[in-house]
Amino acid sequence: MKLTKDQINDIKEQQAQNNKTKRVTAPELEKILYEALPALDHGFIRVVDYMGDDSSIVQSARVSYGKGTKKVSTDSGLIKYLMRHWHSTPFEMCEIKYHVKLPIFIARQWIRHRTANVNEYSARYSILDKEFYLPNKENLAAQSIANRQGRGEVIEGEQAKKVLELLKSDAERTYHNYETMLNQRYDGTTIDENKKGLARELARMNLTLNTYTQWYWKTDLLNLMNFLRLRADHHAQYEIRVYADIMLDTLKRWVPITYDAFMDYRVGGTEVSAKGKIVIQKLLNGEDVNLTDSGLSKREWNELMEAFQIKDKIV
Amino acid sequence: MKLTKDQINDIKEQQAQNNKTKRVTAPELEKILYEALPALDHGFIRVVDYMGDDSSIVQSARVSYGKGTKKVSTDSGLIKYLMRHWHSTPFEMCEIKYHVKLPIFIARQWIRHRTANVNEYSARYSILDKEFYLPNKENLAAQSIANRQGRGEVIEGEQAKKVLELLKSDAERTYHNYETMLNQRYDGTTIDENKKGLARELARMNLTLNTYTQWYWKTDLLNLMNFLRLRADHHAQYEIRVYADIMLDTLKRWVPITYDAFMDYRVGGTEVSAKGKIVIQKLLNGEDVNLTDSGLSKREWNELMEAFQIKDKIV
Amino acid sequence: MKLTKDQINDIKEQQAQNNKTKRVTAPELEKILYEALPALDHGFIRVVDYMGDDSSIVQSARVSYGKGTKKVSTDSGLIKYLMRHWHSTPFEMCEIKYHVKLPIFIARQWIRHRTANVNEYSARYSILDKEFYLPNKENLAAQSIANRQGRGEVIEGEQAKKVLELLKSDAERTYHNYETMLNQRYDGTTIDENKKGLARELARMNLTLNTYTQWYWKTDLLNLMNFLRLRADHHAQYEIRVYADIMLDTLKRWVPITYDAFMDYRVGGTEVSAKGKIVIQKLLNGEDVNLTDSGLSKREWNELMEAFQIKDKIV
Amino acid sequence: MKLTKDQINDIKEQQAQNNKTKRVTAPELEKILYEALPALDHGFIRVVDYMGDDSSIVQSARVSYGKGTKKVSTDSGLIKYLMRHWHSTPFEMCEIKYHVKLPIFIARQWIRHRTANVNEYSARYSILDKEFYLPNKENLAAQSIANRQGRGEVIEGEQAKKVLELLKSDAERTYHNYETMLNQRYDGTTIDENKKGLARELARMNLTLNTYTQWYWKTDLLNLMNFLRLRADHHAQYEIRVYADIMLDTLKRWVPITYDAFMDYRVGGTEVSAKGKIVIQKLLNGEDVNLTDSGLSKREWNELMEAFQIKDKIV
Repeated sequence: MKLTKDQINDIKEQQAQNNKTKRVTAPELEKILYEALPALDHGFIRVVDYMGDDSSIVQSARVSYGKGTKKVSTDSGLIKYLMRHWHSTPFEMCEIKYHVKLPIFIARQWIRHRTANVNEYSARYSILDKEFYLPNKENLAAQSIANRQGRGEVIEGEQAKKVLELLKSDAERTYHNYETMLNQRYDGTTIDENKKGLARELARMNLTLNTYTQWYWKTDLLNLMNFLRLRADHHAQYEIRVYADIMLDTLKRWVPITYDAFMDYRVGGTEVSAKGKIVIQKLLNGEDVNLTDSGLSKREWNELMEAFQIKDKIV
Repeated sequence: MKLTKDQINDIKEQQAQNNKTKRVTAPELEKILYEALPALDHGFIRVVDYMGDDSSIVQSARVSYGKGTKKVSTDSGLIKYLMRHWHSTPFEMCEIKYHVKLPIFIARQWIRHRTANVNEYSARYSILDKEFYLPNKENLAAQSIANRQGRGEVIEGEQAKKVLELLKSDAERTYHNYETMLNQRYDGTTIDENKKGLARELARMNLTLNTYTQWYWKTDLLNLMNFLRLRADHHAQYEIRVYADIMLDTLKRWVPITYDAFMDYRVGGTEVSAKGKIVIQKLLNGEDVNLTDSGLSKREWNELMEAFQIKDKIV
Repeated sequence: MKLTKDQINDIKEQQAQNNKTKRVTAPELEKILYEALPALDHGFIRVVDYMGDDSSIVQSARVSYGKGTKKVSTDSGLIKYLMRHWHSTPFEMCEIKYHVKLPIFIARQWIRHRTANVNEYSARYSILDKEFYLPNKENLAAQSIANRQGRGEVIEGEQAKKVLELLKSDAERTYHNYETMLNQRYDGTTIDENKKGLARELARMNLTLNTYTQWYWKTDLLNLMNFLRLRADHHAQYEIRVYADIMLDTLKRWVPITYDAFMDYRVGGTEVSAKGKIVIQKLLNGEDVNLTDSGLSKREWNELMEAFQIKDKIV
Repeated sequence: MKLTKDQINDIKEQQAQNNKTKRVTAPELEKILYEALPALDHGFIRVVDYMGDDSSIVQSARVSYGKGTKKVSTDSGLIKYLMRHWHSTPFEMCEIKYHVKLPIFIARQWIRHRTANVNEYSARYSILDKEFYLPNKENLAAQSIANRQGRGEVIEGEQAKKVLELLKSDAERTYHNYETMLNQRYDGTTIDENKKGLARELARMNLTLNTYTQWYWKTDLLNLMNFLRLRADHHAQYEIRVYADIMLDTLKRWVPITYDAFMDYRVGGTEVSAKGKIVIQKLLNGEDVNLTDSGLSKREWNELMEAFQIKDKIV
C-alpha cells in the first residue's frame, strides 16, 4: 500500500483533530482512527467514524435515561445474554464507518451484504488508480477437488510463475488501453490534444476484476458481526478474509465486551441439528451410533464429529 | 413532562461528560445533547448520540481521504446538488439516535417507518408508567367531512368537556385495573401479599392506546428526512407532528447546510405530474385551460392551483 | 371468529377463481388459499397470495434457465445444504402474503420484524371492529418468578374470574365511550344527529390494547422462517405462538422440503458456544466437568445439559 | 443473444406449463413469461415469476376480504391517489422476479439498489460464459465536457475502430488466459491433463468488466418503480437504460393502471423547489423574474425553464 503525499497529509490532518464531545468514546479505537491499515498488496481499511460503545448496547436494551453502565460485570452479563438469545436490536444501536480500498472482484462479494451504506468511488466520474491485486505465491492455490468453491494445494514452480505473469501483463495491458481510450493518463494528463477521449463510463469496462476500487462503507454493529461471521470464517475466500481479520481487530478495540461474546457464541460456537443432537446424546450415553442410522449425510456426520473432536468416528 | 430525581441526575451525569475525540462534532447539537425536550403533555425527545456532520456527506460523496470540507460554499453547492438529484447514499453516512417518550397510538404510526433501529421499553418485562395523553382543548377536533382521515373544526363546550372526561376516566380506570391484575402498583409495591399477579405480558392488554411508552430510535440522515417529510407535513396527525417539529430543530443544529437544502427541495417544494406540467405551460403561454380538458381530477387540479397560488382557478 | 355474510361471500368468490398460469404452483397451499384459519377468540390468518415453491429455491441457487427441479432427492440435498450453511438469498426468492386479524398488543410485537411489507387497517380512516381478545382460563398465567418476561402457574378461582371480568368490562366500556366520542356506533349508524363526532384519529386512543386490528402482511420465505423461529419458540408469548403455529402449517403446505430442513436445522437444533463445545468434548471423553471450571454461567450450563438431555448434570 | 439448445428447451418446458391457480394472474405478462428478451449484444431479461396485479394494490390498501376490485374506474382512482401522495406500502404487495444476463460493470451499478433479492451466477463455483459486451458504433460516445459523468458526441472513424478493437482483443486475450489459468476451456474440457488448474475464485480476477454475468433478481413493485425511475431516466448510463426500458414494458403488461400513474406522476413529472415555485408564481402573475434574484443556481434555473418549456428564459 502506498499513499500519496496529499493523502498522507489529509489523514494526518484528521488525526490531529482534538474535539470535545459529550458523546461516549471508544479510546482504543480512537488510537487508530483514520489510519490506513494495509490489506493485500495495495488495499487498506480505515475506520473514519463510529457511534456508541459497549455501554450503548446496555443503555438501549434497558431503554434507560442514563449512561446504562452500572458495573462492567453487569453489563457483560447482559451483553452475553443478548448475544446468546439472538437479541438483535440492541446491537443495532452502534454504528461504524470504514474507508476501504479493495479489488473489484472482492468488492462484488462484499456488497452482497445489503444492510450497509455504501459510497463507491465512481469510475463514471473519475479515473481509477493504476493498481491491481496480484496474489502472493503462498496464496496461489489450485482449485479444490473436494469443494467446488474452495481452494486446494498451492500451485508452484513454472506454472505459478506463468499465472502471475499472465495476471500482471493482462492487468497492465488492459489498464494501458483504458488510458488510450480515455486519451488520458492515470495522472490526469492528456495523451493526444487533438483527440476526444472515450466516456469514462464506457472505458472502465476494459479493466480487469483485480483492479482496485474504494468505498465508504458504514454499518451497524449487528450487521458488522453478521458480515464478520461469514467473512472471517475459514470457508470465506482468502482475499476477503484478510479484510475481515483487520475488522475483527477494530471490533475488539471498539466494543471489547461484545467482541468476547461474539467470539464465544458465534465464531467459536457450532450448531447442532435435531438429528445431530440425538447422535451426541447417544454417544454421551455410551450407545453405539453410526452414520447409516443417524439420518445424517456423510458430510454432516463428519462436520459433527469434527466440531466435537470425535476423531475416531470420522468416516 | 415530569422527570424523577433519578432521571434528572442520570441526564445531568451524561451532560457532564467531557470526552476528547478525533471524530467530527456538531457543536450546536452538543449543546442540547441528552436534554429532554418536552412533547405533548408527558412526552419528550432526547438526542442521545449522533455520528457525522455536513462535511461527512461531502466526504463520502467524494470518497475522499481527508475531512471533505474544502470550503463551505463548495460543500453547500454539492449538498444542494445531491439533494436536488435524489442522491441517497451520501446522506446515509450520518446517523442519529433519539430517546423518545410518546403515546402508544403514535408509536404505532411512527414504527411504520421500518428503516430505523428501535428498542422499546418492554411491557412484558416492566410496568409501564402511569401517564396518558390527553389532548389540549384546541386540539380536540371533530372528524373532517372532506377528508376521511383528517380533522375538522374544534369541538367545544359541553361535548369537549365530556370527551376529555371520558378519556381521562377510562385511562385511569384501566390503569388502576392493570395494577389490580398485576397485584402491584405503578411504584413497584405489592398490593396483596397473599396473591400472585397476572403475567405482565397479559395485564398490559388492558391499557388504553394513549398510555405513554418509550424507545430508543436510531436512523440515518436520509431516512430521518424521509420521516420528517411525511410527519412534519400538515397532512400528518397533529400528535406526531409535534415530535417531527422538534426533530426538525435538531436536524438544523446537526447539519445546517443539509437542513436548508431539505427545506427548499423537499418540505417547501412541490411535485408536478406530466399532465400538470402541461397545464402550467399553457397558463404561462396565456392559453386558456380548464379542469375538464386538463385530464386532472378536481382534487389534483386544486392542489396544483394552490401550489402555485393561482387562487382564481380553484374550483 | 365470526365473519359477516359479505366477508364470507368475498372469500368464496376468491376461492372460486380458476385461473390458468405458467407459474409454478403449490397445490397443498392452493387448497386453503383465502380460507380464514381461526386464531385466538376473534382472530384469523388467511393466505391470500404466494410466489414460488421448493423448486424456485433450487432454480435461483443454480441460476438455471429451466425449472430447477432435476430430481426431488437432488433438490432436497441442495436445500438441506443451503439451510445448514446459512445461505440466505435462495430462500428470499419465494414470497407469501397473509391477511391477519390479531389483537393490537400482539400486532405491536409482530411488527418488530421489519423485513416484511404491511398494510394495516387504518383507525384514522375507519372504525375498528367491536372485538377484544379475552384469554381462555388455561392461558391466564401468573407472572413467572424465575423469568422476568415469562409466565408462571395458571391463575385460578376467584382471582381468575376477577381478572376476566375486569378485562371484559374495561374493553366494553372503553369501546362504548369510543362510540360516544365518535358519535357513531360500530355499525356506522349515527348516535346524535345534532352532534359532530370526534376525529377518528383521536377517538381511537381510548381503546384498550386487546382490541383486534387487521393487516396484510407479506414477507419472503427467509424472513418468514426467521419470524417463525422466534415466534413459534416456547419462549415466545402464547398469543403470538398461536399465529406462528398456524403459519408453520402453511409453510409445510407451501414448501415441504424446506419445511423439513427448517425443522431439523433451526427449530429442533441447538447452538453450542465455544466454551460449551469443550464441556461436551470432555464429557464424551469421559472426563469430569463441572459448572465452576466450565466458564459457563449457571443458566448457560443448564441450557446445555438440557439440550443434550444430560439430566444428572443439571444444577 | 444466443441460447444453447438445452437452454431453449428448458425455457420451452417452462412455457408449456399449464397450471391451475386460485391466485390472481396477469394475462399480458403470462404471454411473455420465461421468454428471453434480448438486451445489448449478449444479454437478456426474462420474467420468471410474479405475484399480484393492480387489484392486489387496491385490496391491501383497503385491507379487504375480497378481491379488491370493485370497478376499474374506482381502482384506477385509488391507485392514482396512492401514487400522487407517495403511499408506499400498497405497492410493496406485488412482487416480480427476473432472470437477467448483463455485463459485470452494469451489474455493479444495478446492485446498488439494495432493496431487492439477488442470486448471482457464482464464478467461485463455475466458469463464466465467453461473452463480452462491445458497444454498437452509435453508442461509442466521447466523455461529456459539460457533465463529468455523462456522454458527449459519438466517436467516429479511425478512433472508433481502434477503441472497438482494443475492447475486443483485450476481452478475448484475458478470457483466453483465464482458461489457461483454469487449465480448462469455456466448454468444460481440460487443457492439460498433467496440470492442476488455478482456483476459479482466483482466475476470475483476470476477466474484464464487460464480461457477462447473470442473476435472478426479485423485487417488489414499489422498489421496481424506484429502480426504473432512476435507470430509465435519460441521465442513466445507456447500457442500463436498455434493460430498464425492457422492464418498463414488463411493468405495463403486469400492472397497466399502476404503469399509467407511474408515467404521469413519476417519469413524466417534475419537482419544483420552494424557490422555484416562487419563480413560476411570478411568471404566472406576469412579473419580471431573473436568475440573479431567484436564488437559484444557473443550472437549477435552466432545469426549471426546460421543465416548463419557457425556452426564452434559458440562460
